[in-house]
Amino acid sequence: MTDPGLSAAAATVNGHRLTRKGRQTRDRIVAVAAGLMQERGVARTTIEDIQAAAGVSSSQLYHYFADKGALVAAVIELQGQRVLDVQHLGLDRVNCVDDLWRWRDLVMGIRTAQNCVGGCPLGSLAADLSETDALARAQLGRWFAEWERILRTGLAAMASAGQFVDGTDTDRLALALLAATQGGLLLSQVHRDTAALAAAMDTVIAQIGTHLTEAAAKAVRHR
Amino acid sequence: MTDPGLSAAAATVNGHRLTRKGRQTRDRIVAVAAGLMQERGVARTTIEDIQAAAGVSSSQLYHYFADKGALVAAVIELQGQRVLDVQHLGLDRVNCVDDLWRWRDLVMGIRTAQNCVGGCPLGSLAADLSETDALARAQLGRWFAEWERILRTGLAAMASAGQFVDGTDTDRLALALLAATQGGLLLSQVHRDTAALAAAMDTVIAQIGTHLTEAAAKAVRHR
Repeated sequence: MTDPGLSAAAATVNGHRLTRKGRQTRDRIVAVAAGLMQERGVARTTIEDIQAAAGVSSSQLYHYFADKGALVAAVIELQGQRVLDVQHLGLDRVNCVDDLWRWRDLVMGIRTAQNCVGGCPLGSLAADLSETDALARAQLGRWFAEWERILRTGLAAMASAGQFVDGTDTDRLALALLAATQGGLLLSQVHRDTAALAAAMDTVIAQIGTHLTEAAAKAVRHR
Repeated sequence: MTDPGLSAAAATVNGHRLTRKGRQTRDRIVAVAAGLMQERGVARTTIEDIQAAAGVSSSQLYHYFADKGALVAAVIELQGQRVLDVQHLGLDRVNCVDDLWRWRDLVMGIRTAQNCVGGCPLGSLAADLSETDALARAQLGRWFAEWERILRTGLAAMASAGQFVDGTDTDRLALALLAATQGGLLLSQVHRDTAALAAAMDTVIAQIGTHLTEAAAKAVRHR
């Protein structure tokens, strides 16, 4: 997804186009803020922390962002784009359940490489901001809806390829898969262990597998 | 679960037993702190906010809690006990998959009554504290392990009652059910809509249903 909000906000400040250097400075501030907020949470990250870590002055920072809320909005766009890039990588060419298993292995591989430190960037921001910032909650809701759409599109492609028996509610299975992945990511963060993520994804993909046609089920290799 | 840490901490301060009134004051402080932290997050809740909302002086509050960390630990115990009380209510007498559906309806009923406002009290604290407070993460990990144990015990009871075919990994299904529930609660918070929670719980319980013996499957009424 190319987000119009991000592009517009990144390309201009007060209606003026940013220079290449200006754009780089802005992007560095957002990346640094995203890292600190992922580590500490939004409330524990001050504008001063971000300035110091990004090596910019207060006037530079306020040149690009009117207030912390504007910076949080930019962080949500960055993290949304990062998370969804991975989902596109794993899900854009789904034709059979083996492709879902490959996506599962991609997510597990990333989580293992992270040693289960940190939560899902979108999930963490959602838990952090949903009750205190209605705009952020709406913005995060749009990113989760986009993630759900990618999963739905993948399962719909499988349906188009004749993989599922009639009456299979692929949209609902896609939503369940997203929820299971989110919960697995949270539990893996608490326990510093991938077991919950693996169990959750495997169980929902196995359930998706029960809706396959006989021919599609026979062709499954991965499990 | 009766948590020995909670009882001990509640009954004594610096080795002295609390009076009934002292215990009531302490409990009120913890309940007020839990409410504010659930609403705003831990970092956005100051000791001063808690004092004001509980109607206690600074010296009263510090009589019971050495610092904010001690108060956070007491909040985790309170929320853990509250969440697990509901799980016990729904899961302590599980004998068949219909009992799981009844638990699902209980969780959905609570979430609907909440209008999907707020996250799971344990899940929210886990997302909030896991990266900044290793003690809190460990404490939350113990509560999630206890929740997982309750689910495992329920599925094990079904297995003992001859409900599952041989080789069914009920422990892994229990963990998947917990993760799906957590993810569903988070997405329901973001979207203010129970759809994700319902899809996640239904999909995992349906998958548990695929492991039933033929006789057990025939006896299912609820779905």
